[in-house]
Amino acid sequence: MKKDNVELICSISELSSLFKEKTNVQGFLSKVTSTIAAHMNCDSCSIFLLDDISGELVLEATEGLNRDFIGKLRLKPGEGLTGQALMDENIIIESEGLKNPNYKKVLGFGEEVYHSFLAAPILSGLSKIGVLVLEHKIEDFFNINDQMAVKAIASQLATTLENAKLLISLRESRKIENKRITGPLHIRGIASGSGIATGKALILGDSPETVFLEAGDIDYGESIEDFEASLNSTVRQVEDLQEQMEVEHSDVASMIFSTHLLMLSDSSFSGEMANMINGGDSPVDSIIAIVNKYITIFKGSNNPRLQEKVQDIKDLGHRLLRNLRVEEHEEGDYSGQIIVARELLPSELIKITAQNAEGLVLFGGGATAHITILAKSLGVPIVFTDNKQIFDIQENSHLIIDANEGHIFVNPDAGTVRKYKRHNQSDRISEEEISSIGEQTYTADKKRIRLLANINLLSDLKNATLFKAEGIGLYRSEFPFIIRDNFPSEEEQFQIYKKLIERAPGEEMTLRTLDIGGDKILSYMKDIEEENPFLGLRAIRFLLKNEKIFQTQLKAMLRAGAGSNLRIMFPLISSVDDLIAARKVVDKCLKDLKRDGLKYNKKPEIGVMIELPSAVMVIEEICEMADFVSVGTNDLVQYMIGVDRSNDHVAWLYTAQHPAILRALKKIADGAALKKCDVSICGNIAGDEKLIEILIGLGFRKFSMNPAKIPEVQKRIEKIDTVEAAAKAEALLEKGLVSEVKEYFESHGI
Amino acid sequence: MKKDNVELICSISELSSLFKEKTNVQGFLSKVTSTIAAHMNCDSCSIFLLDDISGELVLEATEGLNRDFIGKLRLKPGEGLTGQALMDENIIIESEGLKNPNYKKVLGFGEEVYHSFLAAPILSGLSKIGVLVLEHKIEDFFNINDQMAVKAIASQLATTLENAKLLISLRESRKIENKRITGPLHIRGIASGSGIATGKALILGDSPETVFLEAGDIDYGESIEDFEASLNSTVRQVEDLQEQMEVEHSDVASMIFSTHLLMLSDSSFSGEMANMINGGDSPVDSIIAIVNKYITIFKGSNNPRLQEKVQDIKDLGHRLLRNLRVEEHEEGDYSGQIIVARELLPSELIKITAQNAEGLVLFGGGATAHITILAKSLGVPIVFTDNKQIFDIQENSHLIIDANEGHIFVNPDAGTVRKYKRHNQSDRISEEEISSIGEQTYTADKKRIRLLANINLLSDLKNATLFKAEGIGLYRSEFPFIIRDNFPSEEEQFQIYKKLIERAPGEEMTLRTLDIGGDKILSYMKDIEEENPFLGLRAIRFLLKNEKIFQTQLKAMLRAGAGSNLRIMFPLISSVDDLIAARKVVDKCLKDLKRDGLKYNKKPEIGVMIELPSAVMVIEEICEMADFVSVGTNDLVQYMIGVDRSNDHVAWLYTAQHPAILRALKKIADGAALKKCDVSICGNIAGDEKLIEILIGLGFRKFSMNPAKIPEVQKRIEKIDTVEAAAKAEALLEKGLVSEVKEYFESHGI
Repeated sequence: MKKDNVELICSISELSSLFKEKTNVQGFLSKVTSTIAAHMNCDSCSIFLLDDISGELVLEATEGLNRDFIGKLRLKPGEGLTGQALMDENIIIESEGLKNPNYKKVLGFGEEVYHSFLAAPILSGLSKIGVLVLEHKIEDFFNINDQMAVKAIASQLATTLENAKLLISLRESRKIENKRITGPLHIRGIASGSGIATGKALILGDSPETVFLEAGDIDYGESIEDFEASLNSTVRQVEDLQEQMEVEHSDVASMIFSTHLLMLSDSSFSGEMANMINGGDSPVDSIIAIVNKYITIFKGSNNPRLQEKVQDIKDLGHRLLRNLRVEEHEEGDYSGQIIVARELLPSELIKITAQNAEGLVLFGGGATAHITILAKSLGVPIVFTDNKQIFDIQENSHLIIDANEGHIFVNPDAGTVRKYKRHNQSDRISEEEISSIGEQTYTADKKRIRLLANINLLSDLKNATLFKAEGIGLYRSEFPFIIRDNFPSEEEQFQIYKKLIERAPGEEMTLRTLDIGGDKILSYMKDIEEENPFLGLRAIRFLLKNEKIFQTQLKAMLRAGAGSNLRIMFPLISSVDDLIAARKVVDKCLKDLKRDGLKYNKKPEIGVMIELPSAVMVIEEICEMADFVSVGTNDLVQYMIGVDRSNDHVAWLYTAQHPAILRALKKIADGAALKKCDVSICGNIAGDEKLIEILIGLGFRKFSMNPAKIPEVQKRIEKIDTVEAAAKAEALLEKGLVSEVKEYFESHGI
Repeated sequence: MKKDNVELICSISELSSLFKEKTNVQGFLSKVTSTIAAHMNCDSCSIFLLDDISGELVLEATEGLNRDFIGKLRLKPGEGLTGQALMDENIIIESEGLKNPNYKKVLGFGEEVYHSFLAAPILSGLSKIGVLVLEHKIEDFFNINDQMAVKAIASQLATTLENAKLLISLRESRKIENKRITGPLHIRGIASGSGIATGKALILGDSPETVFLEAGDIDYGESIEDFEASLNSTVRQVEDLQEQMEVEHSDVASMIFSTHLLMLSDSSFSGEMANMINGGDSPVDSIIAIVNKYITIFKGSNNPRLQEKVQDIKDLGHRLLRNLRVEEHEEGDYSGQIIVARELLPSELIKITAQNAEGLVLFGGGATAHITILAKSLGVPIVFTDNKQIFDIQENSHLIIDANEGHIFVNPDAGTVRKYKRHNQSDRISEEEISSIGEQTYTADKKRIRLLANINLLSDLKNATLFKAEGIGLYRSEFPFIIRDNFPSEEEQFQIYKKLIERAPGEEMTLRTLDIGGDKILSYMKDIEEENPFLGLRAIRFLLKNEKIFQTQLKAMLRAGAGSNLRIMFPLISSVDDLIAARKVVDKCLKDLKRDGLKYNKKPEIGVMIELPSAVMVIEEICEMADFVSVGTNDLVQYMIGVDRSNDHVAWLYTAQHPAILRALKKIADGAALKKCDVSICGNIAGDEKLIEILIGLGFRKFSMNPAKIPEVQKRIEKIDTVEAAAKAEALLEKGLVSEVKEYFESHGI
């Protein structure tokens, strides 16, 4: 007689009764098997649990089979019907188990007397726990009711069995093996779009294995004089580096090597090394000992700002060792090396780049927006990856990284090496290409379109000029803030903005006020931790809450803009009220500057980034009050659809080819036109060859983008007819589905 | 002669030169003061750094004053002009420092020869580093140029000085004192809106001081028999508790005490205790030793699921000790106690509540949405706070917590105690009030309005019926998922939904499919960590990506709905495409159920939550395809304005009284009317007495809310005239500013 009421079988008192007897975990599991066997009226019941380390299923309890096999019978992933049930995450029922080709015979286990076979995977959440196996001497014993009953039992027991499994694994405490990669390996990564690099792997990181400084397998100088020479070279090199950075990157590299210099000038650092050497230790051992002592102290500190210095200390140690080499050597920097690291601070990226690293492989995809932007501006190839295998790469392995497409090749084969050699040579932009760029841009029917540049660093002005941008449509003012360890003073900001205005091409210069928060966090503001930074205290909200910082920036901008056109733009405006509040602060700054008798721009144009859906809903009112608006399409798409574009799990949903986005853009274009308000688009979408025709069709005439995009966008625009574009846009606004929009783009060859 | 060119003074080579000489930190600081003094042409320059432990400013270097005071001269916060400069974060310039009443004379320091005084705060980011003080023998020496120069220097040196400060603090490594609260103290918290509690503090937590089990200051049994008795009582109590939970909360409490029961039945747990006692240790020492041993093991594990068990183990130890007490005692539970803890899992909250804790104080405001909802459903008072002082509360201190208003009183005075005694008695709802609720709701001009209930747990049906909801407008299906350690099986879900449908009041029953992600994270899915969960893989996105889980839930819903009206609603739909994809899965489930010959609802109504701005933009197309739509106003406001409502930093921006929100609601109401699609509102806004008139004016006629809100909303509606309401809504839609909207509400007495 079989019970076929699921509720009865799973009754609480029966499950609870499993716990009544005092026993150990194995005894408990044994009780579970006998209870289930009795309930299901089966001849045999066994429990296999997954050993997370080996990936094998291990027999942990059985009723009706040979118990000598407990702990010994191990099945590989997918092995036998039992293994298959877990791999497929599906229940398997066989009226005659022995006949299934995947059935695995185990000599002496005693299964030969059974015919009917049922294996049910035990799953806890998305993770696999083990398999419950039932067998019966009668053929074709299990029906749909049994199937549902076993499913319910497996589900109800999952938690308890997982606990049991945890206890077992805890007591056995098997060790994890360490696997190092030796052969060739290809790892997919996320491209930062900044070129290709070849070099030897250098693993930086915060795992216990990689945080400390280690000696290379080469000859080092052995006398105190060698050490002194290395020390002197290091001091000179770091000083040179600092001065060079000040010339090339005065906006972001101010005193960036100050910890290095401070440590080098501290007698208790180099002094301790010298003491050790005088006491008989070798220079290499002494450097490593003292550097690692400091790493230990800094790492163990409760102060996050001290912890951040670990990288600086290791960096310094690396350079001291490189300068201690006996062989003829170049500077003690990272040339010839590709850095593999966990997350890096922007300032660390600048330091590493300044020291000539060929490229970087960075672990973790989160909060990388500013790193990607910096990488492009600095011209250093970076590939991001979530694959932990990168930390198994052996130091000094040969690496090729492709930051255009997102590839990491470890110990690449000859073919790959050849391919990338060719690549590298064809990657430059020619003089001819440059000279073919027009000073102005027109559509096929001779309508004037303006193409401007988005820039981040002073050094980006070079490209903006090279690619003939008609002005700067967006200067993101974050980087001088992000890279420093603190807020730059009004004077420092003034110097940066002044240089920017003096050196920029064209007439238009739009400075956006600080847009921190979101994916751009200042290291010195870590105390403001937010669950959803994109929905948090960022951009204009931060500035309105920290009015002193806001005033400092505005005054620096106003002073720098004396005697030239100046446009100041506020990010993340959510309402007209935000704009009024921000404008009030500008007025106060103007008054203060007048009072202090300083030179400043008395009539700055005030603009608004349109990136929140709420701003779109009140676009007419905003256009009434602002001198100009600019659409930040990246953020707008993000908030409209509720998708974090930096989150891989939902990247499939992030698209500007969405009816809602097209309709929102239409609303903005119409609102601006009605109020005769200057409007532009300055998100990635402006550089999108596909969408540019539709944007023009919707009525937009001014676009700001990464300057390197200008030549191709200009060529594309020269083929566009504005009347045709408007018709296409009109047709697209009728489409209600994402799939219809995408289909229209494809079928119209856009 | 004074230099007045800021750029010259801050030149890089000069700053870099500070590092040239080898010295220690103090020597470096001394160099800084002499360099600055020379540059500024001053007679004296001193650096004070802030000691983070004592909060005092300490003189660390000086040029021109008595160096014997270095490390000894300490200023309290705000003390003297120097302390004041740091406190105000403003530069102070005095033409004659001695004359300022706040000037602090220090005998023997040598300041009496100086007249002009300048103190500049050194700030790094938002944190205070120290003060730079300049003095000069000439009166009225410092002008505006000096002020700017010093500001620039202070800013440029901030990083370096902070590093120096860190090195000094590291070497001194002063110890932090431990302060316990003894006197009365009031701590502000965030209310969960669930009542008032009084009891003795019990600190649970994961700080090194609170994670381990400790004995109370009372008498415990000392024989092995006492231990056995405690063990037996504990087993019986936990079993009773489990059975009782299954009766009252079958949807969320299935096998919730399984770890407890497993540990109790494991001989190596209680067995080891018995062995120790037989070896001569006391029962109390043995229990504490073994429990703490397991806590150590579990806490040290790399497996987060084992780490989660720490609380269970401690919980068990607590009960064993309570049952070992000599004195006459009630159950070994938490009655009479208020639990102070760091974050709790929802399952832990249920366990603690089941064990009769009077209330809870929880640290940290993040991700508490489901805890707040649970607290209300379970009727247990909880106050959240970010104030770390709660961990300084002495165990067994007298506490009163007010979860309605958000107060924590530690060792409250007699007045507070009396006040809350009165409070507690007036907190019940009377029979009279209940009987005054109408079965149906009408406006003043007799238009029918439907009021439904939002519920979370089976046990919430009691209130839905009590307050005469006309149906369930929103069943949030998350909790059975959130509380379990794994996904519930189809069978388990079927049982829950069936009970729900059988016991619910009214005709309408809307089941929302799983809305996890965002602020509701399953503990068994922690591997999906997202930077911005609200913009991540949540709700329908998760289900479409995990179709098996989606199918399991849909089948359970369809089966439970056999023979009754069934509405299934999808959360976070971003496009018509999402809806089509979800509907396709429903169709597949219907086909499977038919094939399997099971009973099910063949014509479920399919609906959509409107909570994303992109859904608003395609509302007509959605209404064309859906059987009903429901506006989730909480999320809609959040995405429209880009504000996380659970983030304190931006809470000031979160408001439904925003022109953009009113216009979006209008668009939804119009779209639904045009397509004759059933529409309702089921966010908090539906229970908002102020907004209900405007919502009716916009055209909404159906609202779903926390059932306890129904009586007051009904009373409010009975006074509303729909024509008047429409006129008011029309007027409000003209308003473009948040302030105008708010002003309209106030001036119209809404």
